[in-house]
Amino acid sequence: MTLPATAAPRIEVLSVGDELLAGTTQDTNSSFIARELFALGLGLSRVTLVGDTAADLRQAFAAALDRSRVLIVTGGLGPTVDDRTKEVVAEHLGDELELDPSVLEDIRARFAARGRAMPEINKKQAMLPRGGHAIPNPVGSAPGVHWSRAGREIFLLPGVPAEMQAMLRATVLPQLALLFPAAERRLVTFRTCGIAESELAERLQPLMQQHGDVVWAFYPSWGGVDVKLRGQAPAGGVSRAGVADERWAGLCDGVRRVIGHYLYSESPDVTLAEVVRRLLVARGWTMAVAESCTGGLVAARATEVSGSSAVFTGGFVTYANEAKTAWLGVPEDLLAVHGAVSAPVAAAMARGALDRAGAHVAVGVTGIAGPKGGTPEKPVGLVFLALASPEGCWTRRLHLTQRRDMNRAIASQLALDLVRRHCCGLPVGDPE
Amino acid sequence: MTLPATAAPRIEVLSVGDELLAGTTQDTNSSFIARELFALGLGLSRVTLVGDTAADLRQAFAAALDRSRVLIVTGGLGPTVDDRTKEVVAEHLGDELELDPSVLEDIRARFAARGRAMPEINKKQAMLPRGGHAIPNPVGSAPGVHWSRAGREIFLLPGVPAEMQAMLRATVLPQLALLFPAAERRLVTFRTCGIAESELAERLQPLMQQHGDVVWAFYPSWGGVDVKLRGQAPAGGVSRAGVADERWAGLCDGVRRVIGHYLYSESPDVTLAEVVRRLLVARGWTMAVAESCTGGLVAARATEVSGSSAVFTGGFVTYANEAKTAWLGVPEDLLAVHGAVSAPVAAAMARGALDRAGAHVAVGVTGIAGPKGGTPEKPVGLVFLALASPEGCWTRRLHLTQRRDMNRAIASQLALDLVRRHCCGLPVGDPE
Repeated sequence: MTLPATAAPRIEVLSVGDELLAGTTQDTNSSFIARELFALGLGLSRVTLVGDTAADLRQAFAAALDRSRVLIVTGGLGPTVDDRTKEVVAEHLGDELELDPSVLEDIRARFAARGRAMPEINKKQAMLPRGGHAIPNPVGSAPGVHWSRAGREIFLLPGVPAEMQAMLRATVLPQLALLFPAAERRLVTFRTCGIAESELAERLQPLMQQHGDVVWAFYPSWGGVDVKLRGQAPAGGVSRAGVADERWAGLCDGVRRVIGHYLYSESPDVTLAEVVRRLLVARGWTMAVAESCTGGLVAARATEVSGSSAVFTGGFVTYANEAKTAWLGVPEDLLAVHGAVSAPVAAAMARGALDRAGAHVAVGVTGIAGPKGGTPEKPVGLVFLALASPEGCWTRRLHLTQRRDMNRAIASQLALDLVRRHCCGLPVGDPE
Repeated sequence: MTLPATAAPRIEVLSVGDELLAGTTQDTNSSFIARELFALGLGLSRVTLVGDTAADLRQAFAAALDRSRVLIVTGGLGPTVDDRTKEVVAEHLGDELELDPSVLEDIRARFAARGRAMPEINKKQAMLPRGGHAIPNPVGSAPGVHWSRAGREIFLLPGVPAEMQAMLRATVLPQLALLFPAAERRLVTFRTCGIAESELAERLQPLMQQHGDVVWAFYPSWGGVDVKLRGQAPAGGVSRAGVADERWAGLCDGVRRVIGHYLYSESPDVTLAEVVRRLLVARGWTMAVAESCTGGLVAARATEVSGSSAVFTGGFVTYANEAKTAWLGVPEDLLAVHGAVSAPVAAAMARGALDRAGAHVAVGVTGIAGPKGGTPEKPVGLVFLALASPEGCWTRRLHLTQRRDMNRAIASQLALDLVRRHCCGLPVGDPE
C-alpha cells in the first residue's frame, strides 16, 4: 500500500532502544503508528530501529530528520542513564534542557498518588528543551516533546506502548490532521471474526478489482481480520477523480454482503468484547463462562471493557475434572465416556455455568491447548465450544494450531463470538 | 545492550516491503535474526524498514552498506514487479543479472512437484548476479544471494519468515561464525517482579558505577523488569581487559543481594508462571484462584505454561457479589460492612477458593480496575490481594494506575507472585 508521493508528506519513525536490536522486544510502536496514520490518509516512508548508543542515535536521527517532513521518535525517555533520546536530540537541535517545575510536580504527584516518594533519578524526566513543547503523558511519568523546526515536525514519545499510544492519539495525530488536512476522505473499517484472511481476500477479490482506485488493507490478528478501505471523495469542480457517494455506499454494502455474519463492528476501536457487552445490555441479559483449555481467557476477554460488571456474572476455570464435576455439575460418567475434551462435556460445562450463575447465556470451552497432551484421536488444537441458554444448547468443533498461546487466544475470541451470534439470532453451532 | 565496537563487527538488517510500512505486517525477521546472532556473540547495530519504491530502497541500501561490515537484506525477492531488491542491489554493486539454468530447473521442479507448471514470471527468480553466490532455499522458490565485496558481506534473503529462517540457519549463520569467531562472553539475566524500574536502577547505581565496563540493560514490562548484564571475559595473554571470573561472580552476587526477594528467575526464557509451576510441582502442591477485578487474568496467567494442569486446580471469576457469596462463601455481611473491594473480602475469597478447590494455596483479588467505579475512599487502581493456605491468610493493598488494562495486568502478575513468595517462605503481606 504505497501512498502517492505527491499527496503526502514524508513521515518517518525512529524507534530507539537496545532491547529492539537485541530481539528481546518487538517494535510494535511503528506498526501502530502506521495504522493510525492510515486513518488520516498519511503513511510511513521509513522506520529505523537504533540502539541507545549516543553516536548511533545521533547519526540515525540526523539522517532521518534530513529526509522527513515529520519525524516521530519513540523510546529512550525513561529515567535511567541509557535513556538519552531527549538529550541527543536537543543537542542536535542546539537546544538546552532546563528543569520544568510543573512537569516535576506532575511526576512527584504520580508517585505520591501511589504512596511513594519520587526517586531522584526521575527528575531527569522533568528536563525539557527550551525550544520544544511538552507533550502530556496521561499514562506514565515521562512527558514527550514536540519541536517545529526548519519546516519539520519532530515528536519524541516514550517507548512503552500504552504511553506512546495515548500520547499519539491525544496530541500527535490531531496536530498532524491540522497540518495536513487531507482532501475529503472516505474511510471504513470492517472488523471480522471467524474467517481467515485468505478466504476473506478471495471473496472480496471481485470488489477489489472493480474498485481499483480504493486502497484496501487487511490487518490480521489472532482475534480476527480487520479490513480497511480508503477512498478519495470527488474534489468537485472539473475533476472527476474520486469515489462518488453512491458508488461508495454501494461498495460498502457489497463488502457487508460478502463478509456477512463474520462482521461484528464497523468502528475501528470497538472490540468484540464491547460489542457483546452492548448487545447484552440492550437485551437486559447477563452472561457466564466455564472454561478449561482457555484457562480464564474468555472471562478476561469479556471483562476487558469498562462496564462489563453489569453483564458478566462470573466464570469458572475448571482445569481439573473434579472441578468440572463439583463446581459445574458435569456428570462423572460423561467425562468417563466421552473424555474431558468432547462436545458433550463442553455443553455440560456451559449448562452448568448457566445454572450456577443464573445467567441468560453461558459458554463452555474445553480443548487441548498443547504443546503436549495430544493423541491421534484428539490432537493438539482440538477445541469444543458450547453455548447454553434457556432455549437450548449448541456446540462447535474447532481444529486450531500447534501453538498453545495461539490456540488459547483464538478459542477465547471465538467463544465470545458465540455470545454475539446468539444475541443477534445467528446460528452458533450444532444443536446438542 | 550494545556490543563493544572493538569486539564485534557492525551488522545491520534492511527489511524491504510496503506491507511493513503500512502496519499490516509486523517485521518479525529482524528480531529473529537478532536472537540468532546473539548466540554467536554478535549483535545488530541497526534495522531499517523500507518500502518497495526503487529510489528509497537504493538510498537505504547504500547508506546501510556504507555503515556495515555485514548487511542482511530481507524481502523483495518474489516474482512480481514490485519485488526489486535483487535488481536494485545488483545495479548498485555494478553486477549484471544473468539466468542461472540450474536454479531455473530447481524452481520448475518445485512447481512440478505440486503438479503445476512454473508461471513465466517466476523466471525472474532464477536471475542471479555475476559476482554473487546463490543461497539455496530449502523451503520456497526464491534463492538468496551472497556477495563478499570490498570487505563487506551482503546477504539477500526472502521476506517469508519460514524461508528466511531456514536460509539464515543453513547458510548465513555458519558463514558468520567462521568469519567472526566469538571471544568468550559473560551474560546474565535477572528477572524481577514487584519493584519499579526506577527504584531498581537507583538501588543498582553503585554497582553500575563500580563496573562501568559491563553493559547494563533494563527491560521493563507490565509483568516486571528484566535486568541484563553483559561483560567480556579476559582475553588471556598480556591484555588485562575484561571481567575476571572472581569479579563477575562477585558482581552477580551483589546484584542478587540488591534485588533480593524481587528476583524470580535468572533464565531469560522462564516466566513467573513457569517458576510458580515448578515450585508447586517440587512441593507437590496445587493452587486455585478467586478473582474479581482481574476477571480471569490470574487464572489465564497461571495456565499459560504447558504442564500447568498438574498444579492448577481451577479458578473462580466472581464479578457479582452474589457469585462471591454463592460460589466462594464470602459472608454477605462482610460485603455489606467492608464493601467488595476490601482486604477482608479478598481474604474471604482466597479462603473460599482454597476450600472449594481443596488446594494447598489460593489467591484472591478484588479491586477497582477502572476507568469508572472509583470513589474518594476507594479510587481507581485500589486493589487488594490475598493468599490463603492451611497455615493462615495474608493480604496486600496496592495502589496502581488509572488504566484498566494496566491495573489488571499488574495485579494479576503480583497475585501470581504471592504464590511464588509463599512457596519460597517469603513474606506475602500482612497477616489477616
